[in-house]
Amino acid sequence: MNALIVYAHPEPKSFNGALKDLAVRFLTEQGHQVQVSDLYAMNFKAVADREDFVELSNPEFFKYQLEQIHASQNGLFSPDIAAEMEKLRWADFVLFQFPLWWFSVPAILKGWIDRVFAMGFVYGGGMWYDKGGLKGKKAMLSLTTGGPAHIYSKDGINGDIDQILFPIHHGMLFFSGMEVLPPFIAWSVASASDEQRERYLEEFKQRLLTIESTEPIPFHPLSHYGENLQLKDEYKD
Amino acid sequence: MNALIVYAHPEPKSFNGALKDLAVRFLTEQGHQVQVSDLYAMNFKAVADREDFVELSNPEFFKYQLEQIHASQNGLFSPDIAAEMEKLRWADFVLFQFPLWWFSVPAILKGWIDRVFAMGFVYGGGMWYDKGGLKGKKAMLSLTTGGPAHIYSKDGINGDIDQILFPIHHGMLFFSGMEVLPPFIAWSVASASDEQRERYLEEFKQRLLTIESTEPIPFHPLSHYGENLQLKDEYKD
Repeated sequence: MNALIVYAHPEPKSFNGALKDLAVRFLTEQGHQVQVSDLYAMNFKAVADREDFVELSNPEFFKYQLEQIHASQNGLFSPDIAAEMEKLRWADFVLFQFPLWWFSVPAILKGWIDRVFAMGFVYGGGMWYDKGGLKGKKAMLSLTTGGPAHIYSKDGINGDIDQILFPIHHGMLFFSGMEVLPPFIAWSVASASDEQRERYLEEFKQRLLTIESTEPIPFHPLSHYGENLQLKDEYKD
Repeated sequence: MNALIVYAHPEPKSFNGALKDLAVRFLTEQGHQVQVSDLYAMNFKAVADREDFVELSNPEFFKYQLEQIHASQNGLFSPDIAAEMEKLRWADFVLFQFPLWWFSVPAILKGWIDRVFAMGFVYGGGMWYDKGGLKGKKAMLSLTTGGPAHIYSKDGINGDIDQILFPIHHGMLFFSGMEVLPPFIAWSVASASDEQRERYLEEFKQRLLTIESTEPIPFHPLSHYGENLQLKDEYKD
């Protein structure tokens, strides 16, 4: 298996760094090929703008998605974006390692999505959801939180973690064609004991050992939607 | 009223640009004071890192939140962050104008949240939700989408827009103490007719005219949560 780890944390000594290091070592030991995009170390450009293209089709009126299509057709992405796209093409499994900041990914990782998941590459022209450009690949989030698990529940003050991650799981990863494995979450790591951290590392290993046998989150494929892209009656909750 | 507009779009001629321009003009005409943070024009730094502090309390092990607390107590934020904090202190109303990218805010706006909504400034030490540091202020999202409204519904292929915006509305804005007004959404603007765009501008004006009388989204205050920060029985759905 070819595994790409997209890692977003500014401090190598952090628990996120430890989880990333463990994934690299453990996946390699299991005989997988591993590449890492360490976004902070790469000083990855987070902001989608004109500089993302070697040449623009319309410099007078900058439309990001139209330039993405044009760049997809003509090989005009900036080298940093093209390199990440190459890693994605190569990967069978993509692991995202990050701290949950403001109930979402850190800006540097959002920028990676904004820029690399380009129209014409992962979606557009009939490519989306289970027909997305990244079809056949698996993805998994591995994240740390500030608060404990019980406050990220339906009646907990922060709300249900599945609802919080829905825009990422369904809107970014499944939208692009990937099967999305349930997330690995290390809760409240800043206040966790050393023993708890060891347990998290052990649990994470188990998750990495069972990537191929883990059932993805059961999102609806395109075939479940009918007229006006509404869920057909037989698939409604 | 003091109104801060946080605007994130790379093309001034875009419909997002038109909505921002309309908000500036119309709010000013209504007698409000208006400031704009045009994140692209400012080349706003999106990535949270060591450079966000004039001085670090612990350069050996960089912990972003601890440095934010330290910087809050000692006035050590970088000048770009300090300037945005000053605008937030000044504002009674904060309008966020952006295109929905990947079911969330563009990375440059996520970076504004990551960096400016600092621990010690908007949350921490008992400050959160209706006791958050931005208490007494109102916020509103004004966004454009790629797809039409009907696909952003519970049974639509993209999912319920309220669920998609929950991490922003509840997790970023309400968490920080602000009352959150229902969003203004211009759907499918890339394929909208000129007449539809005119209607959107007219509807947007109406929303700007009724900021003070619009009921905020009814999120639960802290007092509705009991033991373990779980919703008390009487407030459950």
